[in-house]
Amino acid sequence: MTDLGSAPAKFRAIDVIRHKRDGLELNHDEIEGLVHAYTVGDVPDYQVSAWLMAVVLRGMTRGETAALTEAMLHSGEVLDLSSMPQKKVDKHSTGGVGDKTSLVLAPLVAAAGIAVPMISGRGLGHTGGTLDKLEAIPGFNVNLPVAEFRRVLETCGCAMVGQTPEIAPADRKLYALRDVTGTVESPYLICASIMSKKLAEGIDALLLDVKTGSGAFMKKEKDAAFLAELMVETGERMGKQVVALITDMDQPLGKMIGNALEVMEVVEILRGHGPEDLRELCLHLAGWMLQLGGVSNTVAEGTQLSTQLISSGKALEKFKQMIELQGGDSGVIDDASRLSQAKSRADVFSPTAGFVASMQCEQIGTACVILGGGRERKEDSVDPAVGIVLHKKVGDPVSAQEPLATIHYNSPPRAQEAARLISRSIQVGDAVPAKRPLIHRVIQKSGDQR
Amino acid sequence: MTDLGSAPAKFRAIDVIRHKRDGLELNHDEIEGLVHAYTVGDVPDYQVSAWLMAVVLRGMTRGETAALTEAMLHSGEVLDLSSMPQKKVDKHSTGGVGDKTSLVLAPLVAAAGIAVPMISGRGLGHTGGTLDKLEAIPGFNVNLPVAEFRRVLETCGCAMVGQTPEIAPADRKLYALRDVTGTVESPYLICASIMSKKLAEGIDALLLDVKTGSGAFMKKEKDAAFLAELMVETGERMGKQVVALITDMDQPLGKMIGNALEVMEVVEILRGHGPEDLRELCLHLAGWMLQLGGVSNTVAEGTQLSTQLISSGKALEKFKQMIELQGGDSGVIDDASRLSQAKSRADVFSPTAGFVASMQCEQIGTACVILGGGRERKEDSVDPAVGIVLHKKVGDPVSAQEPLATIHYNSPPRAQEAARLISRSIQVGDAVPAKRPLIHRVIQKSGDQR
Repeated sequence: MTDLGSAPAKFRAIDVIRHKRDGLELNHDEIEGLVHAYTVGDVPDYQVSAWLMAVVLRGMTRGETAALTEAMLHSGEVLDLSSMPQKKVDKHSTGGVGDKTSLVLAPLVAAAGIAVPMISGRGLGHTGGTLDKLEAIPGFNVNLPVAEFRRVLETCGCAMVGQTPEIAPADRKLYALRDVTGTVESPYLICASIMSKKLAEGIDALLLDVKTGSGAFMKKEKDAAFLAELMVETGERMGKQVVALITDMDQPLGKMIGNALEVMEVVEILRGHGPEDLRELCLHLAGWMLQLGGVSNTVAEGTQLSTQLISSGKALEKFKQMIELQGGDSGVIDDASRLSQAKSRADVFSPTAGFVASMQCEQIGTACVILGGGRERKEDSVDPAVGIVLHKKVGDPVSAQEPLATIHYNSPPRAQEAARLISRSIQVGDAVPAKRPLIHRVIQKSGDQR
Repeated sequence: MTDLGSAPAKFRAIDVIRHKRDGLELNHDEIEGLVHAYTVGDVPDYQVSAWLMAVVLRGMTRGETAALTEAMLHSGEVLDLSSMPQKKVDKHSTGGVGDKTSLVLAPLVAAAGIAVPMISGRGLGHTGGTLDKLEAIPGFNVNLPVAEFRRVLETCGCAMVGQTPEIAPADRKLYALRDVTGTVESPYLICASIMSKKLAEGIDALLLDVKTGSGAFMKKEKDAAFLAELMVETGERMGKQVVALITDMDQPLGKMIGNALEVMEVVEILRGHGPEDLRELCLHLAGWMLQLGGVSNTVAEGTQLSTQLISSGKALEKFKQMIELQGGDSGVIDDASRLSQAKSRADVFSPTAGFVASMQCEQIGTACVILGGGRERKEDSVDPAVGIVLHKKVGDPVSAQEPLATIHYNSPPRAQEAARLISRSIQVGDAVPAKRPLIHRVIQKSGDQR
């Protein structure tokens, strides 16, 4: 329900700006008043951008963060899925390179009887986006109206769409402003942006996959944990069960980077194959979602059930059903050649023998953007066919002149630039590097970090 | 000379915002690029307001402050007064209550053979403005085009006008934005705003009167001294001689508050009479201006010469000449009844006998605004006739039921409100209060505070 009629009559944006500038804690009415007035156009961009910068530099209390999230959530429609008997659980990732877990998890968790109403975003910068990956499947429509989204969800237990104009319009407007005013980088604003959209899905519980490492938005684990803790507490304050996992993004996840290539890897995983790290993470995340959804008593039990749902083919069947319900060509599952194919391929070779010591993960993501597989700017279009296939991951032994990666490209000059970047991004050393854990920590409620 | 063609081609406002947000020092090109792009309309308000808030919270180095001042100065016309043989010296006050020194100093210093090209502002909030006081003189035109301003200056040695659109347009635009985004309160931005306008006057030297106390913008002497030091160093970096005096504004200056009343008090001072504090401050400021202008070797010598220029009548004669050249009725000098007169008067009495212990100076300024003599908002008009005459100053003995002040008013309800405020603002106690110095410090160059 849109509820824009409740802002106080005597709201003065300048006072809210000054209070935040001076480091005071804003009260609920001030925050709600500002978000409301901005959403309806009563407060100009230039006042809100000054306020956003004050928030970036002064921070917010937990109460302010929750109030901001709530105001943004209630700036638009909140789905009411109470007519569906199942628990509704979603997952959100802060983004990385080769992170295609959403495409695995939605059908896998739905196959266990949990509803997964998933509203996702597009790729920006070095990170990929779930919507771009889905659109690599010919015909797949991510722009469903709310009624159609609900119908797909009710029919197959999962649905994957983009943000509609009805969902958290305040976030849409604020994000566009943050993007051009240097005010993206604030955990409080990031938390409110993510949580307001996710809570608008009408879910009971949310699993957060907060990435850390060279390919993540939060490079340092400390920063990732801070954001995770903030989101968990904000969700709890709003009566939702929220768990965050801090997971590794110091190298790409799996071996495929690029939209069509990643769909192929998703199918591999749903067939019980695919790269070990991706499979392990998907099963673990699914275990958590099954536990949050009340289908399993423990995460381990949930992981075990998820493994069975894959080996029985039920998860893949669910994926097929969702593709068809959203207008896509499910033939891609059995015939990958129905996905867009790049015209040419080129290998990147290891200069020496040894072990893959590390990867500059962000640069590998950037190499995919250079190929045309991602976006520099929001308005850019993506080429679904291009991408990178990694043949080696960190710790793998490699011979001199052995291929480290294969580039799938449509433009030779772009391929050259991407190849140079990938070469520089993958370090080969003499020793086996220390293994980084795939899951760094679990953050379940404020202070309880395991 | 307008010089708007030199901004770097690849200027990106978002980078400048981010650098300031992250506490980095901006280089000259970044600051000049931002100011230039904003002035010509290539950068939107919402980016600049985010940047301004980052400046408020991160501060600026001395180099950044000078670069900002220079960029704002060169956003418009800089007067070239090199054809005039005299030295050009101006004075700027940060504003207070009853501060009419500019009207005394311009003719007094011009009478000593120094050119005073004075561009002033209007009153806002509790502080009065030089332009409003001048306009209390019937016919006086403060809106002279640059050529006419120059003609008056060349003819009589002083001219007093408002900011023209050609002078520092970047400041005009930035100030309007700061006013509505909570970014007025930054010494760096205040310094750049003041200095860019003053240096556009084509002066050789500048005397700054930085007020401190309950009626000043900077209530604490520490804050006033910080701003003063910043302005002195900024002026020096731009090759100008700048001296700042930190002077007292813990009670109104002189006895008259209100535009026409203050013109009367200016005439008293120029006749060698008037309240002691105002006369002393004017003579001291004039002494500094004469020393800066090379007419006197020392400030004391300058003060002595100024005293003579008053007793000989030359300063008053100069005032008369300037009024006539700017279209005003100089008859007001000999016949104060030619100034606007308020319809009614009412006294504010002392409740007890004792000594005036202190005044809440800002509230007395606000009382004058309530009467209609000042502005709440920039677009308000002022009533020149209304105001307050103080009969007692801090330290003066007072009997029970003796008048402390007389209110000159045109609206009885406003007079009642002003009277209540004045009553509350003047404290009468048993003991003679400690005397505050009129001049707290002199700040001549970085670190040299006497």
